[in-house]
Amino acid sequence: MDIVSTLGLTNFVMQFSRISMYPFFDMAHYTLSIMKLKEQPGAVDVAHRSPIACWFSGMLCCFGGAILASVLLGEPPIEPFTNNRNIILASVIWYLIFYCPYDKFYKCCNFLPSKLFIAGMKEVTRARKIVAGVMDAHSRYRNGWLAVIAVGWAKGAGSGLIANFEQLVRGVWIPERNELLRMSYGTKVTLIGAVLFTFQQMNYLPITRHNLIFLYTMFVVSTKVAMVLFNIHHSPFAPMEVALYHMAFSWQCTSTESHFQTEASNTGETLGTQCSAPLDASPEESESIKRRRAKKAE
Amino acid sequence: MDIVSTLGLTNFVMQFSRISMYPFFDMAHYTLSIMKLKEQPGAVDVAHRSPIACWFSGMLCCFGGAILASVLLGEPPIEPFTNNRNIILASVIWYLIFYCPYDKFYKCCNFLPSKLFIAGMKEVTRARKIVAGVMDAHSRYRNGWLAVIAVGWAKGAGSGLIANFEQLVRGVWIPERNELLRMSYGTKVTLIGAVLFTFQQMNYLPITRHNLIFLYTMFVVSTKVAMVLFNIHHSPFAPMEVALYHMAFSWQCTSTESHFQTEASNTGETLGTQCSAPLDASPEESESIKRRRAKKAE
Amino acid sequence: MDIVSTLGLTNFVMQFSRISMYPFFDMAHYTLSIMKLKEQPGAVDVAHRSPIACWFSGMLCCFGGAILASVLLGEPPIEPFTNNRNIILASVIWYLIFYCPYDKFYKCCNFLPSKLFIAGMKEVTRARKIVAGVMDAHSRYRNGWLAVIAVGWAKGAGSGLIANFEQLVRGVWIPERNELLRMSYGTKVTLIGAVLFTFQQMNYLPITRHNLIFLYTMFVVSTKVAMVLFNIHHSPFAPMEVALYHMAFSWQCTSTESHFQTEASNTGETLGTQCSAPLDASPEESESIKRRRAKKAE
Repeated sequence: MDIVSTLGLTNFVMQFSRISMYPFFDMAHYTLSIMKLKEQPGAVDVAHRSPIACWFSGMLCCFGGAILASVLLGEPPIEPFTNNRNIILASVIWYLIFYCPYDKFYKCCNFLPSKLFIAGMKEVTRARKIVAGVMDAHSRYRNGWLAVIAVGWAKGAGSGLIANFEQLVRGVWIPERNELLRMSYGTKVTLIGAVLFTFQQMNYLPITRHNLIFLYTMFVVSTKVAMVLFNIHHSPFAPMEVALYHMAFSWQCTSTESHFQTEASNTGETLGTQCSAPLDASPEESESIKRRRAKKAE
Repeated sequence: MDIVSTLGLTNFVMQFSRISMYPFFDMAHYTLSIMKLKEQPGAVDVAHRSPIACWFSGMLCCFGGAILASVLLGEPPIEPFTNNRNIILASVIWYLIFYCPYDKFYKCCNFLPSKLFIAGMKEVTRARKIVAGVMDAHSRYRNGWLAVIAVGWAKGAGSGLIANFEQLVRGVWIPERNELLRMSYGTKVTLIGAVLFTFQQMNYLPITRHNLIFLYTMFVVSTKVAMVLFNIHHSPFAPMEVALYHMAFSWQCTSTESHFQTEASNTGETLGTQCSAPLDASPEESESIKRRRAKKAE
Repeated sequence: MDIVSTLGLTNFVMQFSRISMYPFFDMAHYTLSIMKLKEQPGAVDVAHRSPIACWFSGMLCCFGGAILASVLLGEPPIEPFTNNRNIILASVIWYLIFYCPYDKFYKCCNFLPSKLFIAGMKEVTRARKIVAGVMDAHSRYRNGWLAVIAVGWAKGAGSGLIANFEQLVRGVWIPERNELLRMSYGTKVTLIGAVLFTFQQMNYLPITRHNLIFLYTMFVVSTKVAMVLFNIHHSPFAPMEVALYHMAFSWQCTSTESHFQTEASNTGETLGTQCSAPLDASPEESESIKRRRAKKAE
């Protein structure tokens, strides 16, 4: 990559891609994952009714990616639990976040400057996990690029993808919501990363792995910090998504509409229904659309 | 098998059992699977809200059997996704069925003569899948005939058996309905096929594999075509099932009833309740029975 | 272990740890598991509507531990079904319990003296299963004691841990209840056993495996028999649990309360809420607490 070498960053980038994630970056990942768990409705109640269910739920949040990638590759899903060092670290953080007197630990971590710091560090682990997943899958399936992307994605964003089952451990079941139906920013950025690293691994991208890790990490860290700082909740990819969506899945509507206007045929209504509720509709809007439809159906 | 050789079909049967399923027969299977998906309530809405969830759901419909068989045999469930050729074919068909302008592709396929043709071709793939599953499982578990039947069944009718989880991807959850509680015709005929091919594989049936594939395929194709043509929805096995059910699971009732008539004992009611709602009751009937019971319970 | 050798029981204990579980002890396990299944609301109805779903559900109750342990270790979950001998035995018992005329078999087994006998025999299998799981996992993960405990626990109490999915087969879905949220006695005692056998396997306990199997089995058999005899439903570990719970997860409350009394600060209410509903609250109590909270929330 020219940018990196012209800036004289080659050495720095090499060293950056070799930093050990344990213990500090992993710690940030565990802290943020379990903080997010604590913010779920009912989680604190579960923590006091059944510490074991809460602990298992917390571990699924921390190691969900590794577990899901193991399942996809036909490896023992219990393997992440054989890494005592990381499990103990995650358990200590889980204990501090849920049971620390006066909720001190959670409040400290939730304080804006420290949250910014933790969120930034957590994002550093993302690229590493994706790369680990991509390399593992690529060593088995040389040409199965779809499987390689899937494993990279699962490793990087697994806790989101298995959220339904993590909730089930806590006695919560929300089938109408999952990460495929309404992707969060983290899941989206991990998918993009998985695609990039897979293409890099298959030599379709003119960039070394070290440089890609560095650039991708810079991008996700800065985006995440900006999102936490300015309290942004919508995805920064929204305009790109809308464009892509219209290009791939919605161009039929335009042709339909003109057809509809000229012919006013009977098929118009069916097609019109199919083209409503595009990807960029805000949740509230699409909810109200659904409610209206339900009323109609009655 | 005498019938085949006396009819001078030996050569034809050998060639028939070697026809490649790719691309035409596979195409028919993908088309029918995704058409069935599109007919599910809410599927078109999901296709427009989240193409990724819809695509994944479609792939589960197309490759559900291979995925379930992989899971049962402890192999990576991602393996079907390493077959780029088939995945791309299925994805193209998924795209055409869900997003083709004016719904042209779906309407063409749903036109009775083409639907008949597609349904017939799809059934040809069934025998092949069952045989593949049976042979794979038999090479590992020489004597575990139950496991061999299960893998053959899973490979042939997997998308039905995992329907609950396929629906979950689309945000739909209907726990009270599954293929084991109320089997569809496809699931039943696959189970019978899995039993037959397992017995053939274990040399309990005096017939060669080629002939069995041919005869089984003829049977399922003709039955399916007849069902589509005459719009039959009930299973052609119903009389056999009822007989089998009464022989195995309901003979107690007869003895109970005579007992009931002669003694009019207190145990009568309990036993009577157990013997009602036989397998051949229509869904509506058994629903009304349930409702009445629920009222009684109140 | 001194007790055993001083009592001159060494030989007896060695022989005891070598008794074959097949057929009598396994039979007791299958009988009790399927009797428990039959007592579930709706199970008898499913048995008459869909014998296949009922049979599969029964097999999940009998072999749930082996299946869950296989899944955790990345082995084929179908492996328990390759053991024809045990599957046929379990199927015969399933048939007798659900379809025996006049419900004779179930009534015989449910008669107090025979139930005592069966329950005692079933508990003998528990230790063996835990040991099998622990040894299998320990041979792969030398130092992963957490994974070893998990596999031992899964093997010994698997049917409880996968109960949600066993219910799904019967069309029942109760997400708010699972064995992690509210552990049954069997699950708890298996967890304790898994911890003990893991420590023994890792040479942290000054006792031979034979002796531990003997002592653990004596303990679980006598406790279970006492529970059946005197119709005890609460866990005999309750006092220990409460003490442990207060030591580990509730000491913050005490400090909070004193803090609350002296300062009457604003944070008091939040912390008070967190400390209510301790582990030893009876189900009814905690239900009423929940209901009251729900009302408040409205």
